Amino acid sequence: MPAYRTVAIVGVGLIGGSIGLALRQRKLAGSVIGIGRRQTSLDKAIACGAIDHSTTDFESGVAGADIVIVATPVDSVADDVCRATAIVDEAALVTDVGSTKGAICSAVESSPTAVAERFVGSHPLAGNHRSGPEHATADLLEGKTVVVTPTPKTPGPTTERIAQFWEALGAQVQRMSPEQHDQALAVTSHLPHLVASALAACTPPEWLPLAATGWADTTRIAAADPELWTAIFSQNKQAVSETLAGLIEQLTKLQTELNEENWTQIHDTLQQAKRIRDALGN
Amino acid sequence: MPAYRTVAIVGVGLIGGSIGLALRQRKLAGSVIGIGRRQTSLDKAIACGAIDHSTTDFESGVAGADIVIVATPVDSVADDVCRATAIVDEAALVTDVGSTKGAICSAVESSPTAVAERFVGSHPLAGNHRSGPEHATADLLEGKTVVVTPTPKTPGPTTERIAQFWEALGAQVQRMSPEQHDQALAVTSHLPHLVASALAACTPPEWLPLAATGWADTTRIAAADPELWTAIFSQNKQAVSETLAGLIEQLTKLQTELNEENWTQIHDTLQQAKRIRDALGN
Repeated sequence: MPAYRTVAIVGVGLIGGSIGLALRQRKLAGSVIGIGRRQTSLDKAIACGAIDHSTTDFESGVAGADIVIVATPVDSVADDVCRATAIVDEAALVTDVGSTKGAICSAVESSPTAVAERFVGSHPLAGNHRSGPEHATADLLEGKTVVVTPTPKTPGPTTERIAQFWEALGAQVQRMSPEQHDQALAVTSHLPHLVASALAACTPPEWLPLAATGWADTTRIAAADPELWTAIFSQNKQAVSETLAGLIEQLTKLQTELNEENWTQIHDTLQQAKRIRDALGN
Repeated sequence: MPAYRTVAIVGVGLIGGSIGLALRQRKLAGSVIGIGRRQTSLDKAIACGAIDHSTTDFESGVAGADIVIVATPVDSVADDVCRATAIVDEAALVTDVGSTKGAICSAVESSPTAVAERFVGSHPLAGNHRSGPEHATADLLEGKTVVVTPTPKTPGPTTERIAQFWEALGAQVQRMSPEQHDQALAVTSHLPHLVASALAACTPPEWLPLAATGWADTTRIAAADPELWTAIFSQNKQAVSETLAGLIEQLTKLQTELNEENWTQIHDTLQQAKRIRDALGN
């Protein structure tokens, strides 16, 4: 007997598709249904083996699911979650995979039409610069961290059952508040993205033949979808702005040290950075 | 008959070791001799198969070489090059692999003891965040760009013979002046390094479990050797400072746009960055 009768995935891109592949490979769901706006994308997801069935009709798609995963762009998540919580059975649960959590969770809790106790937010730390189900892989979540963000109003069992869902896919779950999540991710994800884009945008294209490994690594995520990321920055505006201010300060300090030839201090900053980077590995 | 009787490599680390491995694998040299300060490092390089022989005696090591490659840290390169040009045979040539070129090339040309016409500067764009001969690989230079930087005083045949040397190792050669090189590399290598380090240094270590692919890629080169990079920044101080000023300006503009919720403009910058990043590939 699979753990779930039916799992519905709203938005079958890189993350949604990878969840579908993992559910099917691990035989965790009787049926995986993909819900989207364009049948061509859904056909691609079926061809990739990410889902069993598909529909462009949101209501009938989520109606029979035990678990609904909303994997749409962050500026659509709250609406899709609100609708889904109102349609599903009493015992069913809804989560999402958005890169921001504060705006989404408070929109769901303050919605007059949502059934908020059926929802808890999630964020799998497993994206990359690619998009679309054709880049989905069954092991994308394996060994990765999924942040689950209950609020004081989230029922304990809702959080636990969603945490179990991610663990069944091979991920490690970390619980924190939506606000803590957004503060931390501003530093560990949103700021690096903004900086990678600023660096790439500052590079005269005629010098690209002189870009080696360092440039390639440092700017890789600048290849991600600009729409998705503009929405992420807009939803985590304040934390990103504050953390960007800290980086600008650090860079201005480095510039003064360069101009003053303060090599001892520059060396110390590089050494501190190396210590932190080495702690992550790979 | 191999193309070179003896190649001497001064400093057998990641790059020097990879050159040695490639020369031996491609059977381009009758003998590859490694010159260093510590016999333990040289023994490691012999064990890796990067060199045939080794010595800690600079003079006897370079004396019989057709080609001398100086692969020491950038703040030692000019001295080592000057000494080598004065020791080698009349027909022998000297080059280096330093990440900066202006300071090195002008130090050699203004040295009263160097024989400057036996030298032209090189910079293989093939480093990474690792160091030491144990990370050297025979294909490190294959398909990579090596910048060769003649000055108005460099004899044409010196440039051509050094270019042929790199091409024999599978690299593509691009010729430019030392000053052009330093301007371009400030943008395509030195600035990304400084920014990767600033980002890593700004990250509270307790949030590392929340760092995903984006943070890992963007900060990877911050794991490189702080000594080597402090020396690089010091030798290309002005160009790095100017290019850093441009980036700080770009980031400050992005911050204003964030605070003013100017999502159209932020989207445009992300789109422009994606276009440039996509042009590089991988």
